[in-house]
Amino acid sequence: MDAEAFRKYGKEMVDIVADYWDTMRQRQPLPEVKPGYIWDLVPKDPPAEPEPWSRIFADIEPVVFQGTTHWHHPHFFAYYPTACSYPSIMGDILSGGIASIGFTWKSSPAMTELEMVMTDWLAKSIGLPECFLNSDPGPGAGMIQCTASDATLIALLSARARAVSAMEQNGRLNWLYSTISRALPTKFNLREMMKKVEQPSQEKSQSPESQIINFEHHDPVYFTKLVAYCSDQAHSSVDKGIMLAGVRMRKIKSTKDAKFNNYSVEPEVLEAAIREDRAQGYIPFIYVATVGTTNTCGVDSLTKLGPICNREMIWLHVDAAYAGSYALCPEFRYLIEGIEMADSFNFNCHKAMMINFDCSPMWFKDAREAINYFNVDPTYLKHEHQAVASDYRHLQVALGRRFRALKVWFVLRSIGTAKIQEHLKIMVDRAIQFAELIEKDDRFELFVPQHLGLVCFRLKGSDDINERLNTIINDDRRIHLVPAKAHGVYFLRFAVCNSETTEEDVKYAYNVITELAQPLLHF
Amino acid sequence: MDAEAFRKYGKEMVDIVADYWDTMRQRQPLPEVKPGYIWDLVPKDPPAEPEPWSRIFADIEPVVFQGTTHWHHPHFFAYYPTACSYPSIMGDILSGGIASIGFTWKSSPAMTELEMVMTDWLAKSIGLPECFLNSDPGPGAGMIQCTASDATLIALLSARARAVSAMEQNGRLNWLYSTISRALPTKFNLREMMKKVEQPSQEKSQSPESQIINFEHHDPVYFTKLVAYCSDQAHSSVDKGIMLAGVRMRKIKSTKDAKFNNYSVEPEVLEAAIREDRAQGYIPFIYVATVGTTNTCGVDSLTKLGPICNREMIWLHVDAAYAGSYALCPEFRYLIEGIEMADSFNFNCHKAMMINFDCSPMWFKDAREAINYFNVDPTYLKHEHQAVASDYRHLQVALGRRFRALKVWFVLRSIGTAKIQEHLKIMVDRAIQFAELIEKDDRFELFVPQHLGLVCFRLKGSDDINERLNTIINDDRRIHLVPAKAHGVYFLRFAVCNSETTEEDVKYAYNVITELAQPLLHF
Repeated sequence: MDAEAFRKYGKEMVDIVADYWDTMRQRQPLPEVKPGYIWDLVPKDPPAEPEPWSRIFADIEPVVFQGTTHWHHPHFFAYYPTACSYPSIMGDILSGGIASIGFTWKSSPAMTELEMVMTDWLAKSIGLPECFLNSDPGPGAGMIQCTASDATLIALLSARARAVSAMEQNGRLNWLYSTISRALPTKFNLREMMKKVEQPSQEKSQSPESQIINFEHHDPVYFTKLVAYCSDQAHSSVDKGIMLAGVRMRKIKSTKDAKFNNYSVEPEVLEAAIREDRAQGYIPFIYVATVGTTNTCGVDSLTKLGPICNREMIWLHVDAAYAGSYALCPEFRYLIEGIEMADSFNFNCHKAMMINFDCSPMWFKDAREAINYFNVDPTYLKHEHQAVASDYRHLQVALGRRFRALKVWFVLRSIGTAKIQEHLKIMVDRAIQFAELIEKDDRFELFVPQHLGLVCFRLKGSDDINERLNTIINDDRRIHLVPAKAHGVYFLRFAVCNSETTEEDVKYAYNVITELAQPLLHF
Repeated sequence: MDAEAFRKYGKEMVDIVADYWDTMRQRQPLPEVKPGYIWDLVPKDPPAEPEPWSRIFADIEPVVFQGTTHWHHPHFFAYYPTACSYPSIMGDILSGGIASIGFTWKSSPAMTELEMVMTDWLAKSIGLPECFLNSDPGPGAGMIQCTASDATLIALLSARARAVSAMEQNGRLNWLYSTISRALPTKFNLREMMKKVEQPSQEKSQSPESQIINFEHHDPVYFTKLVAYCSDQAHSSVDKGIMLAGVRMRKIKSTKDAKFNNYSVEPEVLEAAIREDRAQGYIPFIYVATVGTTNTCGVDSLTKLGPICNREMIWLHVDAAYAGSYALCPEFRYLIEGIEMADSFNFNCHKAMMINFDCSPMWFKDAREAINYFNVDPTYLKHEHQAVASDYRHLQVALGRRFRALKVWFVLRSIGTAKIQEHLKIMVDRAIQFAELIEKDDRFELFVPQHLGLVCFRLKGSDDINERLNTIINDDRRIHLVPAKAHGVYFLRFAVCNSETTEEDVKYAYNVITELAQPLLHF
């Protein structure tokens, strides 16, 4: 395919996307397909010879659109939003066209540099303190991860390395102290002694061919004492991250609390857990706070939990995957109050901030630590600017990186922060409207107060009747939402995922729900 | 930005990309910019109000293109290739336009289903055995990871879980045996005993609020005995993955060997390491084999190492990040001979197979294991098809997933496998041409035989003179290549990264190198 063909068919693809959006309301949010539907539509083997684009384009409707859950349908109220905007797609077209890989500064300077400025733009727009900015002379830094799961895992691994480093340090000091005590009566050379102490984890095996290596800061003998903390409302990706990091987890019980704190962790509960675990010889090393939980949009109060973490030398990672975008609006800035006490912070622009997946910026208060822990530097990646330029590969699992800053740049410039604030407020207004409809309806109850774009509600009655309501709504397919459970109670989540969702759409969704609930109420 | 604006400016963006490619030869592969250049070009704060596209488009040349390392320039010979093709960009336009998130089958059926078919297409095209296919009734599966680093990490974590599971099983049996032995004289209930044994890692803490949880198969007390193996030529991402997995590493010394095995691990050396480690109480649990090392395009022979891994119950992960694409050509199929002995296999379509980053398919011989180990299932992700449909989130770190199968589908259909084979052969032919030029030149030597698209060469003489040659070439900027080291010896890597690189381009590169080497030879 040459440039001329791309100019022709690439533009047709732009039209296909625009048409898809223009006709969205003619679709239903959930498709009718069954697992395995595709095997009847797509050949079992790849073609050896090229096929014409006319044939490929013709397959998009039956194979792709007919099998898609339309996340941007105005009647999609499931999960949390995923962003999509035209300027963002344009950023990805350019990113794909350049197709460079930014694993070091030198392998793609523009990719690294624009990411530094864009994470500063995002940090400023949501009100992060100076210490997290790339342009600040301190050791803070911002960069873009793929997903909040990745950010959580990196925070966990950084915190794990910091904790092991501290334990090694303590171990060395203890060893040194006991050695010096024993050695005092005779002559000793402190420098020689320190040399020995500096490499305690390199074990030599007998074979000259190879040897077992214990990574500094990652020695597994230390892991058995480490415990990672999170709320019992934390996202499943936090469980998964802790599991992958190979440490123990303690889920701190949340409290169904005051407004904007729907199921969040009280400081006394966290402190009790720390006391208890320390008494048993465990070392709590990270608290993953959630700002905007998936279940109920609950908020762990950073002003309350931050001082505890700081005092107890526990890494504070803030997972604001959904709610973080809302801090763009001054009236929602309370969400990240106390953020200056966090060691790392992450939110998904690709949820509510009009920037397509994947775009999950993460900030470190002291990025030097993580870089130190994750640095593996073979000859083929070394370059002459290493001392002064950022090599973002050290702050993520993968080596390769896409040019994601382009879509941030295009969205913020061509839309502007004022319009993105409007977009966020519309989603909150729609949620308020739905919550009011529920509150006025005697058959239903709010499970917790509406917060941001999320309304948690249920039929007054058993979990069973609510599970049946969920099944009926999803089988009906006119609207799509998903259920959740908090402390064992089942409820439905109505998440406004789209600023194209109008007041009429909210009324429509309410009518669908009440219509479908009616037969259940007669049991 | 509305659909009409996107139809206009999205198409202009398509032209910008096509223009970039049409005028590539007017650029040089390496940019002139210095670290921090961007702060003078981009404002420090995001705009509140929208800017016109004319102004944004005008910034692309100075901010982006002038700061880009042009990986697709015909004179770029650094690292290994990263793919780019127009049909692939078109796949990403559609993926961005749909913008659904495929974490479960239900959240985007088409995304999961097309990925199942496309990984089958890719598997068949490179000759993977049936057991890895999604359409095979067995427990094998294929899916797309972001990068080879991610695939290696997932293989490590899966293998770690399998090893811990085996240790737990052994521990239970031992415990049961000793308990039964002790209990035999008195009456006992085996079923009750098994119940107790089934949850040995759930420790209860005193607090009713929360408790410490040890994940099944991920209990850190078992990690201290585990050792992961790889060649001393394995990619830095393998070191990093092992470090993050929190286990010990043993790098097996490679041998500078016969043709196509440039620095690979001999079976005797692997066996000796296993014997030695087992004798010391360690448990080798994975060997990460590399097919096409970054240093020298060396190949760990799967036919030689596979039987050892299988016999010793060591997970065999095959990292064929670069070389895997070449298995598309029958004459290079030898690369993955013995692949039926692997537990997992991965290569980067986004290197040599014309599919843009990120697209790193991975296959499991038994995906049930990994799914079992990584499954965390909150209510909001449950759906009615879980038993029969794939939820790919279980096979990766992240929850969210993009619709990457679209670009695979578009590339394989609109280009066809025959033309991709041609593309691969052109790159090999250019490498052969460059190797012949080096071999005919008395001042230079091949460091190892040319393999696939890579030529490793050096000036006859010291490492120092070769380091200076590398610096001079990169300061000159007409061509770009990177150095490497194997067993302490420094050399230069000439990687053909582009089928647009002509015979004249290879001659040009050779002339630039010899011209720049001339002054060094007079010392």
